[in-house]
Amino acid sequence: MASKLKAAIIGCGGIANGKHMPSIKKVSGIEMVAFCDIIEERAVKAAKEYGTKKAVVYTDYKELLKDKAIDAVYVLTPNKDHSYITIAALEAGKHVMCEKPMAKTSAEAKAMVEAAKKAGKLLTIGYQNRQRADAQYLKKAVARGDLGEVYFAKAHAIRRRAVPTWGVFLDEEKQGGGPLIDIGTHALDITLWTMDNYKPKSVMGSAYKKLNGNGDCGNAWGPWDPEKFTVEDSAFGFIQMEDGATIILESSWALNTLDADEAKTTLCGTKAGADMKDGLRINGDDLGHLYTKTPALESGGAAYYEGESSDPGVLEQPPPMPRKMRPPANR
Amino acid sequence: MASKLKAAIIGCGGIANGKHMPSIKKVSGIEMVAFCDIIEERAVKAAKEYGTKKAVVYTDYKELLKDKAIDAVYVLTPNKDHSYITIAALEAGKHVMCEKPMAKTSAEAKAMVEAAKKAGKLLTIGYQNRQRADAQYLKKAVARGDLGEVYFAKAHAIRRRAVPTWGVFLDEEKQGGGPLIDIGTHALDITLWTMDNYKPKSVMGSAYKKLNGNGDCGNAWGPWDPEKFTVEDSAFGFIQMEDGATIILESSWALNTLDADEAKTTLCGTKAGADMKDGLRINGDDLGHLYTKTPALESGGAAYYEGESSDPGVLEQPPPMPRKMRPPANR
Amino acid sequence: MASKLKAAIIGCGGIANGKHMPSIKKVSGIEMVAFCDIIEERAVKAAKEYGTKKAVVYTDYKELLKDKAIDAVYVLTPNKDHSYITIAALEAGKHVMCEKPMAKTSAEAKAMVEAAKKAGKLLTIGYQNRQRADAQYLKKAVARGDLGEVYFAKAHAIRRRAVPTWGVFLDEEKQGGGPLIDIGTHALDITLWTMDNYKPKSVMGSAYKKLNGNGDCGNAWGPWDPEKFTVEDSAFGFIQMEDGATIILESSWALNTLDADEAKTTLCGTKAGADMKDGLRINGDDLGHLYTKTPALESGGAAYYEGESSDPGVLEQPPPMPRKMRPPANR
Amino acid sequence: MASKLKAAIIGCGGIANGKHMPSIKKVSGIEMVAFCDIIEERAVKAAKEYGTKKAVVYTDYKELLKDKAIDAVYVLTPNKDHSYITIAALEAGKHVMCEKPMAKTSAEAKAMVEAAKKAGKLLTIGYQNRQRADAQYLKKAVARGDLGEVYFAKAHAIRRRAVPTWGVFLDEEKQGGGPLIDIGTHALDITLWTMDNYKPKSVMGSAYKKLNGNGDCGNAWGPWDPEKFTVEDSAFGFIQMEDGATIILESSWALNTLDADEAKTTLCGTKAGADMKDGLRINGDDLGHLYTKTPALESGGAAYYEGESSDPGVLEQPPPMPRKMRPPANR
Amino acid sequence: MASKLKAAIIGCGGIANGKHMPSIKKVSGIEMVAFCDIIEERAVKAAKEYGTKKAVVYTDYKELLKDKAIDAVYVLTPNKDHSYITIAALEAGKHVMCEKPMAKTSAEAKAMVEAAKKAGKLLTIGYQNRQRADAQYLKKAVARGDLGEVYFAKAHAIRRRAVPTWGVFLDEEKQGGGPLIDIGTHALDITLWTMDNYKPKSVMGSAYKKLNGNGDCGNAWGPWDPEKFTVEDSAFGFIQMEDGATIILESSWALNTLDADEAKTTLCGTKAGADMKDGLRINGDDLGHLYTKTPALESGGAAYYEGESSDPGVLEQPPPMPRKMRPPANR
Amino acid sequence: MASKLKAAIIGCGGIANGKHMPSIKKVSGIEMVAFCDIIEERAVKAAKEYGTKKAVVYTDYKELLKDKAIDAVYVLTPNKDHSYITIAALEAGKHVMCEKPMAKTSAEAKAMVEAAKKAGKLLTIGYQNRQRADAQYLKKAVARGDLGEVYFAKAHAIRRRAVPTWGVFLDEEKQGGGPLIDIGTHALDITLWTMDNYKPKSVMGSAYKKLNGNGDCGNAWGPWDPEKFTVEDSAFGFIQMEDGATIILESSWALNTLDADEAKTTLCGTKAGADMKDGLRINGDDLGHLYTKTPALESGGAAYYEGESSDPGVLEQPPPMPRKMRPPANR
Repeated sequence: MASKLKAAIIGCGGIANGKHMPSIKKVSGIEMVAFCDIIEERAVKAAKEYGTKKAVVYTDYKELLKDKAIDAVYVLTPNKDHSYITIAALEAGKHVMCEKPMAKTSAEAKAMVEAAKKAGKLLTIGYQNRQRADAQYLKKAVARGDLGEVYFAKAHAIRRRAVPTWGVFLDEEKQGGGPLIDIGTHALDITLWTMDNYKPKSVMGSAYKKLNGNGDCGNAWGPWDPEKFTVEDSAFGFIQMEDGATIILESSWALNTLDADEAKTTLCGTKAGADMKDGLRINGDDLGHLYTKTPALESGGAAYYEGESSDPGVLEQPPPMPRKMRPPANR
Repeated sequence: MASKLKAAIIGCGGIANGKHMPSIKKVSGIEMVAFCDIIEERAVKAAKEYGTKKAVVYTDYKELLKDKAIDAVYVLTPNKDHSYITIAALEAGKHVMCEKPMAKTSAEAKAMVEAAKKAGKLLTIGYQNRQRADAQYLKKAVARGDLGEVYFAKAHAIRRRAVPTWGVFLDEEKQGGGPLIDIGTHALDITLWTMDNYKPKSVMGSAYKKLNGNGDCGNAWGPWDPEKFTVEDSAFGFIQMEDGATIILESSWALNTLDADEAKTTLCGTKAGADMKDGLRINGDDLGHLYTKTPALESGGAAYYEGESSDPGVLEQPPPMPRKMRPPANR
Repeated sequence: MASKLKAAIIGCGGIANGKHMPSIKKVSGIEMVAFCDIIEERAVKAAKEYGTKKAVVYTDYKELLKDKAIDAVYVLTPNKDHSYITIAALEAGKHVMCEKPMAKTSAEAKAMVEAAKKAGKLLTIGYQNRQRADAQYLKKAVARGDLGEVYFAKAHAIRRRAVPTWGVFLDEEKQGGGPLIDIGTHALDITLWTMDNYKPKSVMGSAYKKLNGNGDCGNAWGPWDPEKFTVEDSAFGFIQMEDGATIILESSWALNTLDADEAKTTLCGTKAGADMKDGLRINGDDLGHLYTKTPALESGGAAYYEGESSDPGVLEQPPPMPRKMRPPANR
Repeated sequence: MASKLKAAIIGCGGIANGKHMPSIKKVSGIEMVAFCDIIEERAVKAAKEYGTKKAVVYTDYKELLKDKAIDAVYVLTPNKDHSYITIAALEAGKHVMCEKPMAKTSAEAKAMVEAAKKAGKLLTIGYQNRQRADAQYLKKAVARGDLGEVYFAKAHAIRRRAVPTWGVFLDEEKQGGGPLIDIGTHALDITLWTMDNYKPKSVMGSAYKKLNGNGDCGNAWGPWDPEKFTVEDSAFGFIQMEDGATIILESSWALNTLDADEAKTTLCGTKAGADMKDGLRINGDDLGHLYTKTPALESGGAAYYEGESSDPGVLEQPPPMPRKMRPPANR
Repeated sequence: MASKLKAAIIGCGGIANGKHMPSIKKVSGIEMVAFCDIIEERAVKAAKEYGTKKAVVYTDYKELLKDKAIDAVYVLTPNKDHSYITIAALEAGKHVMCEKPMAKTSAEAKAMVEAAKKAGKLLTIGYQNRQRADAQYLKKAVARGDLGEVYFAKAHAIRRRAVPTWGVFLDEEKQGGGPLIDIGTHALDITLWTMDNYKPKSVMGSAYKKLNGNGDCGNAWGPWDPEKFTVEDSAFGFIQMEDGATIILESSWALNTLDADEAKTTLCGTKAGADMKDGLRINGDDLGHLYTKTPALESGGAAYYEGESSDPGVLEQPPPMPRKMRPPANR
Repeated sequence: MASKLKAAIIGCGGIANGKHMPSIKKVSGIEMVAFCDIIEERAVKAAKEYGTKKAVVYTDYKELLKDKAIDAVYVLTPNKDHSYITIAALEAGKHVMCEKPMAKTSAEAKAMVEAAKKAGKLLTIGYQNRQRADAQYLKKAVARGDLGEVYFAKAHAIRRRAVPTWGVFLDEEKQGGGPLIDIGTHALDITLWTMDNYKPKSVMGSAYKKLNGNGDCGNAWGPWDPEKFTVEDSAFGFIQMEDGATIILESSWALNTLDADEAKTTLCGTKAGADMKDGLRINGDDLGHLYTKTPALESGGAAYYEGESSDPGVLEQPPPMPRKMRPPANR
């Protein structure tokens, strides 16, 4: 490992500081050599904290992309800037890790994929839930054929009262959407990815703004300001895929329900089914009897950098997941 | 109670013997005075077992309907005969209790309602789950406004492996449908009824025949014959109502899932929500905190004749539900 | 099924009345045509209750064996008489079902097997636990190779305080042994049978009489008479098989332990393991993770005649096990 | 406490740094005045971190033993060096605490005991599980006669997949054995010690190497290298003691089982029994009924230096175990 | 048992038919030879059902008492008649079993005890809870000194909503009291009896009529008639005994509480304590640790005639309690 | 918040350092400007750690009270000094927060209240349990009328073995009382405060010294010295209020019970009841059924400064309680 992958950070705000930079620092084969932010002091602070000694600071991402030494770029900007920066980075010959959601429009997203193909570079989107031990196991089990054909699925992203009250999460204009694009997209991603089925045929959906006005109702992060909560509070969808499969998508930040479940999928196949309701559980029949099979996964949460990467689209290659047990005290 | 309601049974087969006749016999204000079946001996047997001493037997329902002494008629025939017999009975001036499903087509069903209105007689359909203590409590709570506006709901009719192997349940031609019309209709009924919302605007749905071919797979009533299992094994729907509410309907006789739930509803309203997953549970917020409220219902199952009737559409008026506790042994 | 198997009962005492005769009566392809007991009235009573109309009664089993119409014989006598009657029956051309334990000595047992081979008739021993759903499933799973090579096992027959106080169970002279030959033999049988490994190489064991003197100690069937409790109260063994496998056998009628478990086996193989501690559980590793697999078996206890026979050595062929669920009340 | 016990450490490697030195430092009546290791820098580092200001460093243990000021010696070297260093230390007039296992051969162990007797010095072996609250309570209860005569016992040292992948644990040549000598010896020690029974008469045992070849199977510390795993993966024994008692010993680092239990004992006596399966539980009969008695032990794990020493063979005399509860926040 | 105890029943109403007569019939050493009721047909019916062939019927208890053949009398009349009939029976030389409550006034009760002493006959009151296995065990444990001096206790007779709606339970005039004298007296009795402490010094108490007016509130036996519910709904007391002990008594038929508990006691002594909250549990300290001890009692409820009598005041001597386990099916 | 409340600490001992000063420091609208202790160095240390830069130190509280800049005083001295210092502070025109117990005698307490009224200043006592989320919710629910009239209650302050062994807790002379005044007063306070009922009519009580002599019995903070344990170990009371309500008070530091519960209340009202046995639970009846309602309170324990203050008597106004959930890791 004489030469490490040289990475650059574009956008040194919340998600960069809260998730990516501290995690990348723990990965051995990669180092952060450049940092860009329109607020210079944020880039400077990040460079000091996470960069190499010679790390360079930029306020214009275009300048950063000219640096030949950079192998890969993390696009961690506001959503509206994801697409054009990613494309520019790919065209500049960099691999790209772009935060979710990928883009604001389908056209933008397609252009990103085209750019990656043309450039022959890797493009990955920040769906860290794929790296969870349960998702990894399920992906492999489906790929091996354990579930047969998966024809019915559910994507779960339901919160009872966990409305994010910081940042611009609640602002429809600035954020562009509510639970559907924020947590719903995670649930849908692991559903599509484990099914390995990405072609929808038709969709029907409903979105609601029903609880926005009642701010003091036991929210996980304290009361919200009803006037500022302008995105939907819940959204539901029914998706028929080209191959005949059906997916039900449920997402909410606030809903009167006891059935909260987030970043999870349920799959029903011809040979077996799976869900994540009480850890990962496989169910089916064998030797004339129904069975349940529960893998013992020591998933330490949903962090992006946990777990071994099995997906070529992911740039970081962390070391094997450290299992949770420590050597026992009695020798 | 000088004069009892005089009832007639049309169709003395499985559902009559398994559910209706033994139950009616326990209700004090009603007596069975006439029995009709195209197989005469079945009518004769029923009359002996359940009828009054002077009970009359028919093989032609038209003859039965001429009997002026009859107040009410139970239509317990195969599905295809529900509509025209019900209409004839109403026109003959009888109240009617018709088994579910109401009819084979929407047109037939509408004609039945029209006939009831015109005749000024009561018509009810055999949705006994409405009489369960949990459904009754929920109906009252919604009516009182406890849940506010109910805008999202689920109708649960999911079995893992409980395919009925007797009768004609599996025969698409004779039965006309699978879990959707058999158990799905029960779940949908208590959903619509507790919501008090009967006007759909648009519907999208999927039905599958995926497990039909694997007969020996731990079915509750033993292996089925794959060749005879011609109805769907599962069906799912997404319904948008005229007032904007959304209902998700899930039904199956066989599905690879651990989330089996039948004859249940989940409601999400602007003030509170409710489900029946672990008994009836109401959830909402109060004094700035989330809460769960669990009524102690001593529901003795799903039998039609249990519970007090609160619906004018139901003919029988059983005595108050006997609570399950007996006087303690120690005085 | 024009002609039914014609069976004779030799020994119309406790085990015949408590287990065999009522059960055989429920099996469709067999009928009891002859009954023998040295106490004639017991045979007469049995014939009336369980026999065909023309059933014959004997007090001498030799006379019974002369009856050409008899296909199979149940040897339900005291243990000491098992061997010679079984051999005589086989020589008379009958199939034999002999109660456990097979015989008092190894030599007697071998002679029985020889006689069966020579006569070309079926001989089976009354190990009804093989017919339990969990044992059946495990047998099939091991046979399919799911556990790999089974090299370590335990046979569990531990009771905390369940000393049988009736009959001659406690009398060493009459019974010939305590928990080891009574319940230990059941546990060992399902262990050997599911392993399909019957060749021991060496054995080490211990037997104790430690609690015999303390009769009033919470026994399941009330206090015992210390003077009459002359068999061992517990016995333990360590068995090495010819192929290198090890089996630990634990049996007791009374032992100061909280780990009571009876008629169960634990198997550890190169691919997976299995136990019956909380229902049947298979454990192993898959895709780099440990897993537990729990078949949903509706085992209705340990009765001999439950479950489908998969063993050619069993005479009775009962109909498929009726699953425990009944058609639901709501149609 | 004018003068503290002066201790010396011989062997400043893993077990010294991981267990002994940090723990000794917390004990008030003892101080570390000398450190020896053939790798000098390890001794120097230890002296700095744990020693008194005037602590001396050695690379030859013989030199260390000449120091008259030293009262006691900790022998924390590789197993092969335990015996001769211990004997030399005793002969030099020091008390000795030698890590487990005591020695490689029975002869070596006997020589150590002889040396201690001759020197009139204390010799103790590092079986820290004796200091656990549950073991201490059980020891006292047995000594008081609560269990009567203990005639059957089990020593539990079963891991499902917790193969130590560091150090030389897996190397048969260097380590001299697998789970039997590493964790099996702990389980056997608390069994023998609580029974107060150290005289075996005959033993039968089996050891296996069955799972060694399957390295990626959910091991607690990650996959192992099959080629380097040359010790046994499991070992089982059946021990008959001189007084007639039987002990079953089970040990494994990898076994397909759900019944993992380590450093525990089960005892069955004539008056009562005990196990540690769900905390310490005593079971027996009283006033004609069975009972279970569960002491509330606040055992903080298995650390050597926890708990009050009740064994004269242990050098350290820690202060009374700090109970786990802190003074409540509300005064 | 050549001659059986000859018993007479005075009062053949509810408690006689529901509890005493069917139970006495199961006891081997006693037979019912005389029956008295002011409603003759009730006595006749009882005699037929439960009496010996020559059983005599009376309508005047004084006539009955003249019968020299009668050994013992059951006084099962309304409460107001308990005292004078009991005294008359004792004076006539009969043993007496009188239903609880003993009498309406303290003076009456004292006169009954005096009469028994004078006559030299046995007098017992119908406190069947003393015969429960948990009460028996606790009584013996306290008597043996296991709890030391019992100085604080609670008598539990709290129902949430279990108001008896039949008979005259709710009628203050006819019944003389509510939960305090009906179920509170049972709880207090087992408290005093297990403490073996019957001398109160001072008492303070409160009684309430707070929920009487709300009849339809989930009562176990259906809604009550508020106008007829004239006794207290709850009553609480604080009793200081002559020896310094304190007893708290809690009783209710309806109370807004989740802590319902009936016919139970809690004892706190200097050596140990006991309660019946989750079966009988003894708690104390031993070897420097707290412990809980739970006897395995197979109490089959609270029926009077269950359990072995250990109280000389009880007339019936039933055979040893049949334990609940049956011989296992597998021999 | 240009000007902060200026507070002074009188008494810089255990309760000041353990509870008040660190907590006040976290509250934004208040600053500590003066510290008084008869041991000067304690005051100096406190001033450095918690005070403003210009904080002044006193050894005489009278001098401190002359400081005009001080708005409020915390009286954190030994109990005997509470009253006169509080009165002096009020007379000096300060608000006062005085630790519990308020005073040693009723007369002292009344004088304190009088002084506060006369001075027109706020006086509050350190009952921090009122600030717990469960107490706050219950207070509001009772005030809204949810429970109707509360006529029966229990104040729970029972410890099994949690005798405080530090300070002067056990010294009757110095401390003035045991569990009754230390933890009993907390339980009684939240009972009276949630009931909003402060007028007792009559009281009966018992106090015991029964376990004092048995020091080594599993105490939470280790064995106590029997000779120094001179306060009562338990105390019980029965209180009748002027309006007819009854309150049972139970308190202990050591009692042989499994029903330990501290700083909790149980209320029974005419409409509903409440307890804190498994979190806060409201119970009552609704629509003809009993119900349980459980608010989801994220109470982080019993600390004084947690929760929003709703009581005007509390000086500090902390910011809204930070709920326990953190923003999820996956964005």
